[in-house]
Amino acid sequence: MQDRTYTEDAEPGDDVTVAGWVHEVRDLGGIAFLILRDATGKIQVKFEKDEMDDDLVETGLDVARESVIRVSGSVEEEPRAPTGVEVTPEELEVVSEADPELPLDPSGKVDAELSTRLDNRTLDLRKGEVQAIFEIRAEILRAVRKEFRAFRATEITTPKIVATGTEGGTELFPITYFGEEAFMNQSPQLFKQLIAGSNVERVFEIGPIFRAEEHNTPRHLNEATSIDFEGAFCDAHDAMDVAEGIVKAAYEAVNENCSEELEALGLEDEFEVPEGDFPRISYEEAIERINATGELDEQLVWGDDLPTEAEKALGDDVGGHYFITDWPSEIKPFYIKDHDDDEQLSTGFDLMHPRMELVSGGQREHRNEHLIEGFEQQGLDPEQFEYYTKMFKYGMPPHAGFGLGGERLIMTILGLDNIREAVLFPRDRQRLSP
Amino acid sequence: MQDRTYTEDAEPGDDVTVAGWVHEVRDLGGIAFLILRDATGKIQVKFEKDEMDDDLVETGLDVARESVIRVSGSVEEEPRAPTGVEVTPEELEVVSEADPELPLDPSGKVDAELSTRLDNRTLDLRKGEVQAIFEIRAEILRAVRKEFRAFRATEITTPKIVATGTEGGTELFPITYFGEEAFMNQSPQLFKQLIAGSNVERVFEIGPIFRAEEHNTPRHLNEATSIDFEGAFCDAHDAMDVAEGIVKAAYEAVNENCSEELEALGLEDEFEVPEGDFPRISYEEAIERINATGELDEQLVWGDDLPTEAEKALGDDVGGHYFITDWPSEIKPFYIKDHDDDEQLSTGFDLMHPRMELVSGGQREHRNEHLIEGFEQQGLDPEQFEYYTKMFKYGMPPHAGFGLGGERLIMTILGLDNIREAVLFPRDRQRLSP
Repeated sequence: MQDRTYTEDAEPGDDVTVAGWVHEVRDLGGIAFLILRDATGKIQVKFEKDEMDDDLVETGLDVARESVIRVSGSVEEEPRAPTGVEVTPEELEVVSEADPELPLDPSGKVDAELSTRLDNRTLDLRKGEVQAIFEIRAEILRAVRKEFRAFRATEITTPKIVATGTEGGTELFPITYFGEEAFMNQSPQLFKQLIAGSNVERVFEIGPIFRAEEHNTPRHLNEATSIDFEGAFCDAHDAMDVAEGIVKAAYEAVNENCSEELEALGLEDEFEVPEGDFPRISYEEAIERINATGELDEQLVWGDDLPTEAEKALGDDVGGHYFITDWPSEIKPFYIKDHDDDEQLSTGFDLMHPRMELVSGGQREHRNEHLIEGFEQQGLDPEQFEYYTKMFKYGMPPHAGFGLGGERLIMTILGLDNIREAVLFPRDRQRLSP
Repeated sequence: MQDRTYTEDAEPGDDVTVAGWVHEVRDLGGIAFLILRDATGKIQVKFEKDEMDDDLVETGLDVARESVIRVSGSVEEEPRAPTGVEVTPEELEVVSEADPELPLDPSGKVDAELSTRLDNRTLDLRKGEVQAIFEIRAEILRAVRKEFRAFRATEITTPKIVATGTEGGTELFPITYFGEEAFMNQSPQLFKQLIAGSNVERVFEIGPIFRAEEHNTPRHLNEATSIDFEGAFCDAHDAMDVAEGIVKAAYEAVNENCSEELEALGLEDEFEVPEGDFPRISYEEAIERINATGELDEQLVWGDDLPTEAEKALGDDVGGHYFITDWPSEIKPFYIKDHDDDEQLSTGFDLMHPRMELVSGGQREHRNEHLIEGFEQQGLDPEQFEYYTKMFKYGMPPHAGFGLGGERLIMTILGLDNIREAVLFPRDRQRLSP
């Protein structure tokens, strides 16, 4: 790579060329300092006005903040410098001059609205704490992939352009596909099941999903990253084991490999990896416990979905991650299998963070005739899904799986207030650009 | 996971429960064999008719091929069995009975058309050689991610729903986004540049891209997997180093970790990791060499794009992977930087496999005013791209990168005839389902 040393690698005694952004210039009279910032950190560049070439000093002190410069010089120890070393420059080139009127202050001294930050993401990402979120995001996805491999799952990718939606038509974005009507996929659900029914058996996918939901809340995105698993010969408890393993692996990786990033976010003291097994609470027990908190105006009855305040009350009561299992069949999708001995009771489960739902999963209906009935009950035309249901006639094993919201995972791990903080370029009702 | 042993883990002396598909039943009279297949391989189940429970024998021998069964019994050594061991069953349960009329024969004894295979992907993937392609695909993507990390690049994901296309309007799929016109993204180009301009500096993305191209060839898909890189303070040669490293890492990983899969594909003897540096041939030299082969009816002149037969002639001449560098500016996109001393000559490059183009890349234009001129020359309205160009006013470093076609990489590594073999559920002009 172009002759250049990362600032974190500059050691006393080295002659280096460093390149990066002008973070700050401090002129103290006879002496001045320029702080140069790159991907790995910052370094101080010292100007001694009387002892250096006037042009060099002038160029270094006149350059606008956030300009890109390249500095060649010698590195010396300097205990008073922020990183303990400084560069005495011999050459300084302004590579890309910045407009002095910045729409956003990357030094973080001036607060900015989220929308201003998202409109100027390049500048926003020059802030250490924002960069840290996305370095951690990459680490979480890396750890998740590794953990899925430990569960013997194969990574797949499935199409995002589809002829039919999984969850009904209202939440679909329509596309024109060579004159035909098509949609952006809401979930890899049907595709991952088709692969779990083959020799591959266990699969995972990390990819975009698209939901035309009208929700505009700090927890919803219209384009999100879904972390999906599906496993042949797995039941709901097996899928819960995998989901729990994946979530814990993400926390552990951040804890082990992201200490600098946690520090940039001010989380180094409070970060905790969840300990112990996540409790598995049946839906029936969940509504009893929620009712017992007295937090809700109206008592829940069997068959009710859980409103946000109910999730909050139970989350406060449990105090950590937990599963809600055995939901009423009627409030779970048709592809979730019912218990063999009670068709009102499904094998569906959710994995909850005290703040919000992270995962939805269950054992799947693998019996062709039951599946076709399910489509009909959901008001969907089974013929439109024949490409899917017909494969269930040729030896579909019992299988189970889940979908985990990638941004919700990142948001809850880092305690972010808004899900838009967990994605570089969020898509919501108002935001389509950048 | 449900009490079950993978067939590859069944050792003589074990009492096991194995589960999988009925691959084959061979009835030899007094003795019969059922071959059970799972994710890890096959195992023989032996029926001695006179010594076993009649119901057990009848169930085992009557079950249709590709049904899912679960067998409990003891494992014994049997040198004549395909894997050296066999199971003497004590219990046998038919978990999911298959229709005896299969649309496709997973034993591979009967050939099927590609379209039949794609319509019945679940059955198709039960063939060892098809399963092998997708296990190798996962391994390639894993190796590519690891290699990018070795180049200090951070994995990002960027939006697939966008307000504007990068490469002009004709190849875009339009979407309706809450009443607004939007498109499915053709390339993460602009987004990855916006992140390379921040502290993150080096980024990669592996994700879907969508192109409404009319091409319907064995090398084109309308939804494909793009492997993208962008690095601040990189020039075209740095980006070529990364591209070459990524391609070689993919071959090396397949060579090291996929011997069983290569065997299933019959490639164990002929598989080769490319050796030595990929030659970097200038466009000027490339057309000279192509003309010298005499393979083309008409001689190429400077400024011509290379038709398929020209790529083939040069590929045969070079005999391995190679780069074509320094393309004429006018046939490369506006965001590719020209050489400082010759604005007719771009820094754009392609990485070629002898059979086809794999990678397109170059140093990017990082100067705001030149970029705006480029948009105008391309017939695009710079105002529509203001979210992008404005970031170039605030210290955009020189940067370079590339896009690598994921399916083309897999296709060339494995010598597949059709790109549709390298993706589970291809999307082309005719195919929108499954």
